[in-house]
Amino acid sequence: MPKLKEECGVFGIYGHMAASNLAYLGLYSLQHRGQESAGIVSTDGNKLFHHREMGLVTEVFDEESISGLKGSAAIGHVRYSTTGSSHNKNTQPLLITYEKGELAIGHNGNLTNATSLRQELEIEGSIFQSTTDTEVIVHLIARSKEQTFLKRIIEALTRCRGAYSLVFLTPKALVAARDPQGFRPLVLGEVDGSYVVASETAAFELIEAKYIREVEPGEVLIINEDGLKSFKPFPKMKQASCVFEYIYFSRPDSFLGERNIYQVRKEMGRQLAVEHPANADIVVAVPDSGVPAAMGYAEELGIPLEMGLLRSHYIGRTFIQPKQSIRNLGVKLKLNAIKEVINGKSVVVVDDSIVRGTTSRKIIKMIREAGAKEVHMRISSPPMKFSCYYGIDTPVKNELIANTLEIDEINHYITSDTLGYLSIKGIMKAISNYSEIGEKENFCLACFDGNYPVKITDEKITNPQLDLF
Amino acid sequence: MPKLKEECGVFGIYGHMAASNLAYLGLYSLQHRGQESAGIVSTDGNKLFHHREMGLVTEVFDEESISGLKGSAAIGHVRYSTTGSSHNKNTQPLLITYEKGELAIGHNGNLTNATSLRQELEIEGSIFQSTTDTEVIVHLIARSKEQTFLKRIIEALTRCRGAYSLVFLTPKALVAARDPQGFRPLVLGEVDGSYVVASETAAFELIEAKYIREVEPGEVLIINEDGLKSFKPFPKMKQASCVFEYIYFSRPDSFLGERNIYQVRKEMGRQLAVEHPANADIVVAVPDSGVPAAMGYAEELGIPLEMGLLRSHYIGRTFIQPKQSIRNLGVKLKLNAIKEVINGKSVVVVDDSIVRGTTSRKIIKMIREAGAKEVHMRISSPPMKFSCYYGIDTPVKNELIANTLEIDEINHYITSDTLGYLSIKGIMKAISNYSEIGEKENFCLACFDGNYPVKITDEKITNPQLDLF
Amino acid sequence: MPKLKEECGVFGIYGHMAASNLAYLGLYSLQHRGQESAGIVSTDGNKLFHHREMGLVTEVFDEESISGLKGSAAIGHVRYSTTGSSHNKNTQPLLITYEKGELAIGHNGNLTNATSLRQELEIEGSIFQSTTDTEVIVHLIARSKEQTFLKRIIEALTRCRGAYSLVFLTPKALVAARDPQGFRPLVLGEVDGSYVVASETAAFELIEAKYIREVEPGEVLIINEDGLKSFKPFPKMKQASCVFEYIYFSRPDSFLGERNIYQVRKEMGRQLAVEHPANADIVVAVPDSGVPAAMGYAEELGIPLEMGLLRSHYIGRTFIQPKQSIRNLGVKLKLNAIKEVINGKSVVVVDDSIVRGTTSRKIIKMIREAGAKEVHMRISSPPMKFSCYYGIDTPVKNELIANTLEIDEINHYITSDTLGYLSIKGIMKAISNYSEIGEKENFCLACFDGNYPVKITDEKITNPQLDLF
Amino acid sequence: MPKLKEECGVFGIYGHMAASNLAYLGLYSLQHRGQESAGIVSTDGNKLFHHREMGLVTEVFDEESISGLKGSAAIGHVRYSTTGSSHNKNTQPLLITYEKGELAIGHNGNLTNATSLRQELEIEGSIFQSTTDTEVIVHLIARSKEQTFLKRIIEALTRCRGAYSLVFLTPKALVAARDPQGFRPLVLGEVDGSYVVASETAAFELIEAKYIREVEPGEVLIINEDGLKSFKPFPKMKQASCVFEYIYFSRPDSFLGERNIYQVRKEMGRQLAVEHPANADIVVAVPDSGVPAAMGYAEELGIPLEMGLLRSHYIGRTFIQPKQSIRNLGVKLKLNAIKEVINGKSVVVVDDSIVRGTTSRKIIKMIREAGAKEVHMRISSPPMKFSCYYGIDTPVKNELIANTLEIDEINHYITSDTLGYLSIKGIMKAISNYSEIGEKENFCLACFDGNYPVKITDEKITNPQLDLF
Repeated sequence: MPKLKEECGVFGIYGHMAASNLAYLGLYSLQHRGQESAGIVSTDGNKLFHHREMGLVTEVFDEESISGLKGSAAIGHVRYSTTGSSHNKNTQPLLITYEKGELAIGHNGNLTNATSLRQELEIEGSIFQSTTDTEVIVHLIARSKEQTFLKRIIEALTRCRGAYSLVFLTPKALVAARDPQGFRPLVLGEVDGSYVVASETAAFELIEAKYIREVEPGEVLIINEDGLKSFKPFPKMKQASCVFEYIYFSRPDSFLGERNIYQVRKEMGRQLAVEHPANADIVVAVPDSGVPAAMGYAEELGIPLEMGLLRSHYIGRTFIQPKQSIRNLGVKLKLNAIKEVINGKSVVVVDDSIVRGTTSRKIIKMIREAGAKEVHMRISSPPMKFSCYYGIDTPVKNELIANTLEIDEINHYITSDTLGYLSIKGIMKAISNYSEIGEKENFCLACFDGNYPVKITDEKITNPQLDLF
Repeated sequence: MPKLKEECGVFGIYGHMAASNLAYLGLYSLQHRGQESAGIVSTDGNKLFHHREMGLVTEVFDEESISGLKGSAAIGHVRYSTTGSSHNKNTQPLLITYEKGELAIGHNGNLTNATSLRQELEIEGSIFQSTTDTEVIVHLIARSKEQTFLKRIIEALTRCRGAYSLVFLTPKALVAARDPQGFRPLVLGEVDGSYVVASETAAFELIEAKYIREVEPGEVLIINEDGLKSFKPFPKMKQASCVFEYIYFSRPDSFLGERNIYQVRKEMGRQLAVEHPANADIVVAVPDSGVPAAMGYAEELGIPLEMGLLRSHYIGRTFIQPKQSIRNLGVKLKLNAIKEVINGKSVVVVDDSIVRGTTSRKIIKMIREAGAKEVHMRISSPPMKFSCYYGIDTPVKNELIANTLEIDEINHYITSDTLGYLSIKGIMKAISNYSEIGEKENFCLACFDGNYPVKITDEKITNPQLDLF
Repeated sequence: MPKLKEECGVFGIYGHMAASNLAYLGLYSLQHRGQESAGIVSTDGNKLFHHREMGLVTEVFDEESISGLKGSAAIGHVRYSTTGSSHNKNTQPLLITYEKGELAIGHNGNLTNATSLRQELEIEGSIFQSTTDTEVIVHLIARSKEQTFLKRIIEALTRCRGAYSLVFLTPKALVAARDPQGFRPLVLGEVDGSYVVASETAAFELIEAKYIREVEPGEVLIINEDGLKSFKPFPKMKQASCVFEYIYFSRPDSFLGERNIYQVRKEMGRQLAVEHPANADIVVAVPDSGVPAAMGYAEELGIPLEMGLLRSHYIGRTFIQPKQSIRNLGVKLKLNAIKEVINGKSVVVVDDSIVRGTTSRKIIKMIREAGAKEVHMRISSPPMKFSCYYGIDTPVKNELIANTLEIDEINHYITSDTLGYLSIKGIMKAISNYSEIGEKENFCLACFDGNYPVKITDEKITNPQLDLF
Repeated sequence: MPKLKEECGVFGIYGHMAASNLAYLGLYSLQHRGQESAGIVSTDGNKLFHHREMGLVTEVFDEESISGLKGSAAIGHVRYSTTGSSHNKNTQPLLITYEKGELAIGHNGNLTNATSLRQELEIEGSIFQSTTDTEVIVHLIARSKEQTFLKRIIEALTRCRGAYSLVFLTPKALVAARDPQGFRPLVLGEVDGSYVVASETAAFELIEAKYIREVEPGEVLIINEDGLKSFKPFPKMKQASCVFEYIYFSRPDSFLGERNIYQVRKEMGRQLAVEHPANADIVVAVPDSGVPAAMGYAEELGIPLEMGLLRSHYIGRTFIQPKQSIRNLGVKLKLNAIKEVINGKSVVVVDDSIVRGTTSRKIIKMIREAGAKEVHMRISSPPMKFSCYYGIDTPVKNELIANTLEIDEINHYITSDTLGYLSIKGIMKAISNYSEIGEKENFCLACFDGNYPVKITDEKITNPQLDLF
């Protein structure tokens, strides 16, 4: 079940005659990272062309708009959807004209000092167009007195804290940058002799690009007619990659840190089975995100996996909720239990995470109404206790059920017979591929343990769901 | 993989204060039966209200349009999409005003004598608005001299041959009718004391209606302020229910003839394993429709089921195919192979059917490129050799690969190492639930064996893909 | 001031490679005859192509839609706007497929026996798509057993009473027909060797077509690859041309019955000056329709004509009337008095007609507020006392101020100092060009004298503003 | 005939419960000053609300958008249409958020030092959103270190050169400002006790506001809860009001400098008759703008005024020009000659100005084809020889026919028999109302005599038609 919302996905390509067309396909492959809006900016070496709109990639672009995106380099962006700040003016790539010419930027992540930087810039007379933290970066670039584009970017990023995987485009160059802690992923590839960058390797599959390597934390790449150059301009920091990319965000067919996401998730299910076995008749996944872990769980314990919950993919953004008096549809619009499968059975339900607990409660109710004898809830990640400030749209922490309730209280609230979460150690083991010693120190586990790799300085940011400005 | 297109889904409700709202939810649950257009006609007892448009249910309706559909009775319809006849004028329910007042009709199925009936009516001076066979029925009703609405419907249907599951609405009554051979499904239920009819039981789930029974082949139900009355006005004929509802069309959570579709499909996979076992490392389903059979196949043989193919649900109706010169995307827009799962393995691929063979060929190519050592194709239905004239949009028979090629030739064409189809006997066994003696005589198996339960009289109809008129 | 609404304008062309393009220009020139919807149907000799929508000609068509209207023959139609029946389904040309093939029809006028014909057809089983009287004609054609298209049209029209100027198009022929009394105009021309027909000669100007002659009352023209043939199949009747075409509907640059409309209107102003002179400082026209008569009035009496009222042409169809509490905008959205011109003057205001009197009352109030010493209202047509049943959208007769009030009472109601209407004799003299003996017997003056040239048989039609069906 | 395009119209109102509704009506009355886009920004005392779109006022706004413009103060703007810079981002009022809060601005006029100011601001790191000169003003305000909003505006305007009539809105105040030379008009009025400002008095008529006085050149008005305060912060300069407001731009029912525009134009016609009489049968105006001068001309010489040219008001923005091969429609889409009026006559044609000469040439051709014996062209303004840099969209000077050709050469080019322009002295006399000594010194006559009241410093601006940036 989709519960959290990823900030965004980014894509960039330089030196390909079909640049904007490949950017379109790349964004299509990154669609799961943001369904609110999509945009591409391209360049023919002299000027930038852009097309950005609210909607899915396939809704935003048509042949006419793609053919208007001339030139051999392009960057693209998909953005997630929340109420409140879903404005057209916040679509990306952000495109500006400043003293040195045209500049476009696409951003995945969240700056933690955006509010204070913006205040400082406004006092100096800068006028902001949007409410995104991304615009702070372009104002810092516009005010930089450095002589080269690359140095201006580096000067600007030196002032930024938090999470950023960025693509920049000027008429002459593509720049990709990843924050020193590497919160969000960014990978480098090659297609027909041209460099490509993307949030996930899945974007390379459709365009038949070859994966080269990850863009490293703290690395800035510039790609122009002289080829690719790599810089490491920032002080070295400990890596803090987002563990939720493994649990939920990335596509099962992507790989991250050399590990295939589907297999990592299946392994999480196996670890979960080891930590929290259940004596049950069948294992049922909460589709689609819970399926790999459910497969691992079932396999590990030798319990049959059954399709006990069916997911509808037709739901649109404008579903008309009938009057409360008629029906409480809740989760039933997305999921339906298959009674014949569940009736009379003791059922293990595997999901990837619990946020507020309300959805789990509804799913368990549905499964009980379908006749389950027992319901054992198993979660393939640790209890989510803290909000994310690095690019994932989590609720404020006191809305997170695991922040306020103990596990047995959660079990009671969601009405399961038993409830088991995967441990932090277990998830690290799953990611590290069976090795006892995980790489815990290289991951951001703040949502589980509250150890934020970057201090949260800006006051307003304590409620990450509010519009920043 | 979606390959064939169902004609339609229908829904009807009488005597509920939220009639059009429940019709909307019912259509949402029947969305898989037709994604081209959706429509609802309601009545307040005096006049009919309608809203019909091209698009998905969630796109066609919004709060304003639903609230304009006043009254306590409603019928709804979803229609499939083919090129050529996707015109607004063909959206349903069809709504007419004739001498006796207003009348709406929603139709799932295909009349086999529509062309000759239409010619006859036109010679007598009738003017047709659409190119659907459904309009023939309303003209027959309009010309009937019978005194009651029900008798006019019966007189009209007496002249029709072929497949029809119908819902009619007048300001005073809801009528449901199913052809004497029962080609297409139609079920009766009850919610809050009101009767509902629908193409599938899945439509009852979301609105929490209770299943009562199937509308029987040849049965005409009239529901009005006097309650429900049942009529059997047509000569009795042998039942000929469409077997493809079990193989592909109906939702896994629907049940049909008392059997749950998901379980029937899983059983087909088990039968397939019995008939065509394979010595392989993993079983991979072609999602979504191939998943249940793959689960049964894997379970029967004890081979692990793996998610080797990932399906994208984001594709819209307007995907821009990049220039042929760039990439041949083919099936890759919908499916992606997970290399890490497949590489070096001997793979059984389970799908529900093969129509032209081109998609299977592409899927196998994709799996081989992901590194499969061997690819064994298994199909959970018999070879499709003949076109359907009863409401399924199959190609003309010489485009059906199994009509022109032997199984070993198909195996060669799609480049699998081995290929196995489920036998007719096996599919009957799966549907009949392990009993050796299937109910073959009550099913339409024309697409497999060419025995058409209704003689095809109209010449033009030999190419079912062409617009009828 | 626009007060009455014309039914429609029609256009037809046969045998020109730019047929639909010229139809578009023709309709643009006839836009004043109907601003609700526009449509063109064309043919390439085998099938018909159509494009019809609500809106102005320039809104309805673009390059794509025009280029889709293939072929060398076309008919077009513009339709007026009233509330209630402004439905898409009533746009014309009406296009049907019947036993003999495709047929399109465009209609200007109103059948007086449409209701009874429709009832008769519905009893025989015909199903109507629209609420227009025009559809009655096509059903009569579809039911005709005559062997040729022309004979079927003639048989159908023989049953129709009232006003019709019609264009028909089949894949092979263009047919134009005018009712035996010639209520509505229809003219024949020629461009680049191709025949054209249109409601007014103004449509010929823009496309540089040469005027040939009027289509005569009762004449049916068929134009096909054999050229033009004329038929007079109906019993001869006395001509009854609509006098309001001269007063208000036709464009000033059109000519009708060999007379230029602008000059006829100016002459009406002169006759009005002779019948009702005024001792005033200035003459002011109610723009735009009152201008020619005001020019004639001023010239005849030697009083200066001044632009005392200015008309706005920007008003759209969706003007937001501010809350009544704020301002009563009334006529001020369309007209504004120029104070400096009017202040302290004795003013003659010339308008073409008074319908309900409310607009005249507001105009006079506006002129008085601008400081006029005296206001003398002069109307260049006789008092409108009776409703029209032949194609003009007049209110029911008891809403016509001249039906219920005497002239001095009207003068009192509209608050003018004096009020003068042109006499019937005067208007005939103006049309007849100074000859004492007018052709009164050839005109329909029913709205002035109540002598309806066709008996009004259908009961429902006594309220012409209601939807016919 | 419309030939030149006005930059814009502005409107402002403070302290009225129906502020945005009255702004809507005000903009409707100023529609002739800009048909490209329209926008309103309102305030409820705490925040700003806005609605801006491409299109006519009646297209841009509906009840929903007006009701969303909450509060008791509002400013509005209409913008003209040219190709190239008709972007959504250039619609006004421009709305920004800067350090001190929200600010909206509407601008009529053109800054002559915008390019150099923008360069200076960009070097300091400002990022511009639009290509309008108006944005320069807001950046100057955002960078001002002055303590009050009014002082920041004054500091910013002190740096601006050229033409500006401005309205500003903050949540707390409405500010109106006019440049020290008073190029463009701006008037002050009062309605229901609330102050209103507008580009023309015509905007006061519809909302029944009372005219108070002109906003004086160099005056800055601030209207807030303390009432209205007036400031004169700029060094005094000689007035340079645009003479073309009298000739063409302003509405005939507006008055300017206490003079009614219609009467001034009629007087121009009389002066033209005195300077260039003609011995002709009839006087014909080029509608609509040539009508008042034609009336004056005809009256002065006692020659009858006839409606020889008819104007169509239906032309939309998307007229499909038929292929060149078919017809050269030229000016015929807008004007049609009435043959019966012109045929055999010696005709004086009166227009307000000649820009490139191509339209005049086409009009004369049309009149000759209608059978005119002689055509005498009379222009109610002096030859336009120089481009405007103060807010009127004139072509570059070498495209102005009077810049490159002598009057007899123009006469030859446009194919008139004789051609007469009104002299500068004559136009001053007409404006000054019969007094021999005009106020020439207070007008900008640069387009006639090349004496630019503000030196043109910015290089790029020598081609005023190009996008400024």
